[in-house]
Amino acid sequence: MQKVLEEALEIGKQYIEYGNCASYIPELARVDKNNLGVCIITKSVDRYTAGDTKKRFTIQSISKVISLAFALERLGHEKVFEKMSMEPSGDAFDSLLKLDMASNKPFNPMINAGALATIGYLVADFTFEDMLEYARRVCMDKNIVMDETVYESEMSHCARNRAIAYLLQSKGILEHDVEETLKLYTKMCSLSVTAESLANLGLVLASGGRHPETGVRLMDAEAVRLVKSIMLTCGMYDGSGEFAVRVGIPSKSGVGGGILAVVEKRMGIGIYGPALDEKGNSIAGQKMLEYLSKTLNLHMFASEL
Amino acid sequence: MQKVLEEALEIGKQYIEYGNCASYIPELARVDKNNLGVCIITKSVDRYTAGDTKKRFTIQSISKVISLAFALERLGHEKVFEKMSMEPSGDAFDSLLKLDMASNKPFNPMINAGALATIGYLVADFTFEDMLEYARRVCMDKNIVMDETVYESEMSHCARNRAIAYLLQSKGILEHDVEETLKLYTKMCSLSVTAESLANLGLVLASGGRHPETGVRLMDAEAVRLVKSIMLTCGMYDGSGEFAVRVGIPSKSGVGGGILAVVEKRMGIGIYGPALDEKGNSIAGQKMLEYLSKTLNLHMFASEL
Amino acid sequence: MQKVLEEALEIGKQYIEYGNCASYIPELARVDKNNLGVCIITKSVDRYTAGDTKKRFTIQSISKVISLAFALERLGHEKVFEKMSMEPSGDAFDSLLKLDMASNKPFNPMINAGALATIGYLVADFTFEDMLEYARRVCMDKNIVMDETVYESEMSHCARNRAIAYLLQSKGILEHDVEETLKLYTKMCSLSVTAESLANLGLVLASGGRHPETGVRLMDAEAVRLVKSIMLTCGMYDGSGEFAVRVGIPSKSGVGGGILAVVEKRMGIGIYGPALDEKGNSIAGQKMLEYLSKTLNLHMFASEL
Amino acid sequence: MQKVLEEALEIGKQYIEYGNCASYIPELARVDKNNLGVCIITKSVDRYTAGDTKKRFTIQSISKVISLAFALERLGHEKVFEKMSMEPSGDAFDSLLKLDMASNKPFNPMINAGALATIGYLVADFTFEDMLEYARRVCMDKNIVMDETVYESEMSHCARNRAIAYLLQSKGILEHDVEETLKLYTKMCSLSVTAESLANLGLVLASGGRHPETGVRLMDAEAVRLVKSIMLTCGMYDGSGEFAVRVGIPSKSGVGGGILAVVEKRMGIGIYGPALDEKGNSIAGQKMLEYLSKTLNLHMFASEL
Repeated sequence: MQKVLEEALEIGKQYIEYGNCASYIPELARVDKNNLGVCIITKSVDRYTAGDTKKRFTIQSISKVISLAFALERLGHEKVFEKMSMEPSGDAFDSLLKLDMASNKPFNPMINAGALATIGYLVADFTFEDMLEYARRVCMDKNIVMDETVYESEMSHCARNRAIAYLLQSKGILEHDVEETLKLYTKMCSLSVTAESLANLGLVLASGGRHPETGVRLMDAEAVRLVKSIMLTCGMYDGSGEFAVRVGIPSKSGVGGGILAVVEKRMGIGIYGPALDEKGNSIAGQKMLEYLSKTLNLHMFASEL
Repeated sequence: MQKVLEEALEIGKQYIEYGNCASYIPELARVDKNNLGVCIITKSVDRYTAGDTKKRFTIQSISKVISLAFALERLGHEKVFEKMSMEPSGDAFDSLLKLDMASNKPFNPMINAGALATIGYLVADFTFEDMLEYARRVCMDKNIVMDETVYESEMSHCARNRAIAYLLQSKGILEHDVEETLKLYTKMCSLSVTAESLANLGLVLASGGRHPETGVRLMDAEAVRLVKSIMLTCGMYDGSGEFAVRVGIPSKSGVGGGILAVVEKRMGIGIYGPALDEKGNSIAGQKMLEYLSKTLNLHMFASEL
Repeated sequence: MQKVLEEALEIGKQYIEYGNCASYIPELARVDKNNLGVCIITKSVDRYTAGDTKKRFTIQSISKVISLAFALERLGHEKVFEKMSMEPSGDAFDSLLKLDMASNKPFNPMINAGALATIGYLVADFTFEDMLEYARRVCMDKNIVMDETVYESEMSHCARNRAIAYLLQSKGILEHDVEETLKLYTKMCSLSVTAESLANLGLVLASGGRHPETGVRLMDAEAVRLVKSIMLTCGMYDGSGEFAVRVGIPSKSGVGGGILAVVEKRMGIGIYGPALDEKGNSIAGQKMLEYLSKTLNLHMFASEL
Repeated sequence: MQKVLEEALEIGKQYIEYGNCASYIPELARVDKNNLGVCIITKSVDRYTAGDTKKRFTIQSISKVISLAFALERLGHEKVFEKMSMEPSGDAFDSLLKLDMASNKPFNPMINAGALATIGYLVADFTFEDMLEYARRVCMDKNIVMDETVYESEMSHCARNRAIAYLLQSKGILEHDVEETLKLYTKMCSLSVTAESLANLGLVLASGGRHPETGVRLMDAEAVRLVKSIMLTCGMYDGSGEFAVRVGIPSKSGVGGGILAVVEKRMGIGIYGPALDEKGNSIAGQKMLEYLSKTLNLHMFASEL
């Protein structure tokens, strides 16, 4: 396994040059794009790492998974999806198009509009600390904190998210304070994680929400199932369809360079590689996952029985 | 199992009244919407049926699965996806919108534009008979024929598909005769199948493309994997995302009322229920599949280990 | 002439019942929808009035004409249209669609996005008082003030405009403070005018920008020409094309119920009728203008030589 | 006047290099893009020409004006606009977008969708010969014929128009034979005219539909008014708004390089210049019209009184 991981890392490195760090947030643009790491934790809690798996980076859109699970547990499925769909949109992560056409509902909780709506349901009753604590628990990582520098940088460059948020307000989807919603959303995006934190979260999700060692329930089983299903259809922005074909592992990426991947009942995978492709997904990370999927037979429809 | 199937049938029947047969093709509109049947064939080739599982109906969009697999086997992955994506579009099955915007490519082979493109790649080198024979083989049903009446009816009411086809031609995606392409596409839609044929096909797909009893390869393994992945993200039109969450079984529906469902490594399911919801999916069929998924624990992310 | 005006008023009254006051701003919704008035001032400065021509109402989108002229005079044509087009969009007045698609530019200064952009160019260098003074001058109405109640009401219900403004910021079109821009925009919308003020402004525009009696230049000639041309193609929201055919008079409407109409070289017309059609144009006002156009032969392509 | 025309020609020539002949129809692509001519005929029937004013070229979209007038006269306003709007769309001339969204109606008769709808209303009751005769009469040019070579070339490259036509059929807007409609439409586009023919037509329209010398009515007065109004808002494709501002003369362009311009009550202008800008309008033609408008004070809102 360790050897496969190192091979994956070598393959990944060859693609870094074709990607770039997210440019629209100054603090993200300053990151070294050559960072690359991958961590696998198996069901038997064996941990394999290669590369930069302990470097902290901001979780960005992967926080959508955590916020969604949190909201499902605290508010219930019905409330969360009252004014939101679960459909892949085929549009970019920050698209306004579908939202402002016929449907008038965010297409799914994995794009910015849907995640803002999700946070909007929570903002009146839960604090950032509540959600931070939940994030630490499900990632089994006590050291997750909000990266203040990235947070400030994002808040100074969030005009598009703010536009989306006010559009949601105008449609009656955001009912509480928009600026507070935007702050909570951005704080969640600014959580600093490692490839290992993401691998932990992946394993918890792969285990149906239970602690992989103790069996203690960390996340609601129904929420976990829903989250994995949505990761499969919507987790890699408008590259989700092709990723499902090529890699076949429910995953969620963030523009900080992270990818969270869940191999059902078998393992969690965490990746860090901040050079992104034009869709906003880690370019080396995807290649590494494709290699791991093929070599370790992780595709959900792996042909071997 | 038999009991569960009969319960599913009872549940399905309660929803028939909320759906309607496809109205835009006269021959489909004339079908009795109360038809309902479900067939499960397990890996051990045990067959369970309830309701109208031997009634023939036209396969319609489920033929997209067969045509795609055929094209992948004959032309290869690269050719098929040279001018087509694999992304769910979030739009209706017959949408022109995305096709005519930025991408200029059909979003995926499960919507009409993509399926017409797929047929267009085949029309110059393969006959309808070639494809019919393939359909009979993978459905293990020698009695599949083209329903002439439905075919004629569809050809007289296919202005929208014809518009899509000429738009594809104008973009250089359809390179051969458009009318011939449209005819071959419509012939494939007019194949008459039963819930049992679809369950057979489902089992072949669940078995990675091999004959469930003999182990003889009927379909290419790579093609099968790709087809199942795309069914998961795009198989139920613009209801695919929610279906993946609720039911969690790769499926493909047709406006003739059929649903093909594939429970990986376990079973094939075929459904016939021509009363459709507003997205074009069998309304009772979806409810039956949801019940079966819950009761038999068929969801790809079923929480139990 | 007086008789024709009174006939127009009678005709207009019959249509009030089919319209409604703007509902999305509480203060506008409370207005009596039966108000109706029309004022014509001819080139020889003869004034004809019928109905409620002295009642004050908020100018709303008609302020776009004033802001555009002001911007053209102060900043020049090149600056104003550097990041904005002059094309009718065929979409509703508050549409985000076109703005967020290919063009990335507001379609024209008569829709909210374009007017916000225009105000955004001015906000750093000009005060509301500067613009108010200009408005009073070109409307020859010293009593124009900002209606505080409407202003406050609009500021509390401007989520959609705020979304548009932040979207403009995200595209680099709004470069100064967004909230200040939004306030100045909304203040301009809240100016209280009368049908007579609008008739005055119409006459100034019809006279190429000169005071109708003294001949003193009140508005720049080039700006006046541009404004009238844009009013013709874009002044009545997505009803502009049909209005140009039926009425053939460059006009601009506001959701406060006003219409400003300019009969080239002949007269200015001001209308007040707060019952709106579904496109946001005064329903009775349009009918009155249609009647006046026919009866007084005011259509720009009136068939008589 | 003659001098001004020659100056305009010189100015126009400088812009030819920035444009190109229409490339999507082989026969149009083969035209010499250096052709350039302009003809003005005044109300007193004085004729001024400069450059290639006797060369024949295909009328293309300018035929939309003739077909619309013909339809209005024969079928009446109500029938023609029963399933069509009069709004500028802000989209390209061959756009499908708006047609397939909310409205389900062609936006206006100056874009392909609307012109195909117009021809569709006529095709059952009128022959091409009827329409050719009408074209010859209103252009006062007996030598107009259908250019067979261009017609054949266009019919072999009309996939996009065919797509639009079948989409119109699918929406119930085209009720007669689609292929016959497409042929009649394309025949009308293939009429061979000269800059002089267009100037004649322009003068007839400027004169309210009457023969400029005899006063005999050639076109219905109401139809003429409507046609001019729509030319103003929609005649230059998605450049109509800016053209109305800069030039201010109701005009209609065609991808054959022609422009028909109507100076109300004063003159007709015909232009030939097949090098097009990216919107499909003659690039030198527009510059010539802009120069003529400024120099001869032809803008509908010319500032001088």
